[in-house]
Amino acid sequence: MTAKPILHYYIISDSIGETAIKVARSVLSQFPNVKTQIHRYTFISTPEQLQEALDEAASQDGLIFMTVIDYQLALQAEHFCVKTGLICYDLMHPYILEVQRRTGIEPVARSGIQHELTDAYFRRVEAMEFCMRYDDGRDPESLAQADLILLGISRTGKTPLSMYLATMGYKVMNIPLVPESDIPQDLYKYGESKIIGLTNNPKVLEKHRRNRMIEFGMPEHSKYTSPERIQAELAFSNQIYKELDCPVLNVSDRSIEESASIIVDLLDLPVV
Amino acid sequence: MTAKPILHYYIISDSIGETAIKVARSVLSQFPNVKTQIHRYTFISTPEQLQEALDEAASQDGLIFMTVIDYQLALQAEHFCVKTGLICYDLMHPYILEVQRRTGIEPVARSGIQHELTDAYFRRVEAMEFCMRYDDGRDPESLAQADLILLGISRTGKTPLSMYLATMGYKVMNIPLVPESDIPQDLYKYGESKIIGLTNNPKVLEKHRRNRMIEFGMPEHSKYTSPERIQAELAFSNQIYKELDCPVLNVSDRSIEESASIIVDLLDLPVV
Repeated sequence: MTAKPILHYYIISDSIGETAIKVARSVLSQFPNVKTQIHRYTFISTPEQLQEALDEAASQDGLIFMTVIDYQLALQAEHFCVKTGLICYDLMHPYILEVQRRTGIEPVARSGIQHELTDAYFRRVEAMEFCMRYDDGRDPESLAQADLILLGISRTGKTPLSMYLATMGYKVMNIPLVPESDIPQDLYKYGESKIIGLTNNPKVLEKHRRNRMIEFGMPEHSKYTSPERIQAELAFSNQIYKELDCPVLNVSDRSIEESASIIVDLLDLPVV
Repeated sequence: MTAKPILHYYIISDSIGETAIKVARSVLSQFPNVKTQIHRYTFISTPEQLQEALDEAASQDGLIFMTVIDYQLALQAEHFCVKTGLICYDLMHPYILEVQRRTGIEPVARSGIQHELTDAYFRRVEAMEFCMRYDDGRDPESLAQADLILLGISRTGKTPLSMYLATMGYKVMNIPLVPESDIPQDLYKYGESKIIGLTNNPKVLEKHRRNRMIEFGMPEHSKYTSPERIQAELAFSNQIYKELDCPVLNVSDRSIEESASIIVDLLDLPVV
């Protein structure tokens, strides 16, 4: 039996390579049975650095995912790959050249420009700090400042979803629902304009809650994990959502990325 | 004077389109003076849905960024674009077909597969919950569990950087440094293996701290914002970093994404 060959793939970027990694991941996720090995060459800015990366890739017959803005560097890679038969698609220039053709405007040709510390960047940082500061926050002022408010009973995934939406640049607040506590009255001001009610299937909630108990070294079976309690909490949360008239999202079988994308659409938030 | 024309760009995806958005953003960031308008067509799964998106794009002469896994749909788009002269690069199939050719393995051809709820996915969720739970945590057990520990004085960007690294899947803990408090003794166990000391330039810290004071409705000038206090805190943190023998990262002029990428390299963390 021969060992399964490894597919080597090379991320070559003049910045941190996150766009190239994203494309590589999307492609390679279609081949869950192919063993892969990532090689990152980031902050590549000279022909010599690029050549070193290309030579390495050639030595492993690597698949290249490249995002370099400098057109001369991109051409250097293209020439090398044509000569050696390496596969390397330039993910940027087909589009860059087209935008230039249409608009008559030159690209600024500065690498890593999407990471520059612009106003939009600082708004994103602010959103992330907001999320951490007001996790489980309830004061009226922070409710007013939030771009969106997530409600949900325990284990409906409020925290990771809040964090992910915050890294996208939205000021998110999450408020846990428990039948024993009243919700902030100010929530009724916002309703469908910026509130999302999260829910999940009872069986999934039961499983997540048991896992949580085990993780905390507590008894797996308790009131918290009982089907009756979960049903009562779900009924309570559904009632609240009805009163608030807010959209409801069942997160069962949905990844954070999918839930976040749906929420952006549901609330018609500006794509940031 | 004629109004600046708007470049319409279309994200067409059988999932949430994040890969296509990433590529679009990288390209368009090279044209900061071009006014753009995004149009998202997500969860496209039938020829009819695709045609609707393509017709819309054609009506605005839109630039198309497409990630659909189904090869028939990709071909439908390609044929339509050749016919109409629309620009649409298929970001997936050049690579998918090449991997298939090399490995002899068929792609699973399932959309959104990178968002499936795998073990890796649940580890990421766990990392995000860990980050939120132990923000500013100090108990020895959580220090042991963390993949990495960020140290830094106030306004060195620990919180957003922690959150971002957590969404990447790393269990991050952040510990604020203040000369008046001792650091947890257990930190000396880890040193360069998983600690990063964050620092920043005094002038930048002063500006950030003043903004923070204004934001909180407090006097802009105080001990917290004084150059002397900032110098003393920086000296204290540098001393700690020296004792711990940990890598130090100056976050000034670096975006969160860049800092995160550098930290992954510095600590030689597995790329998740």
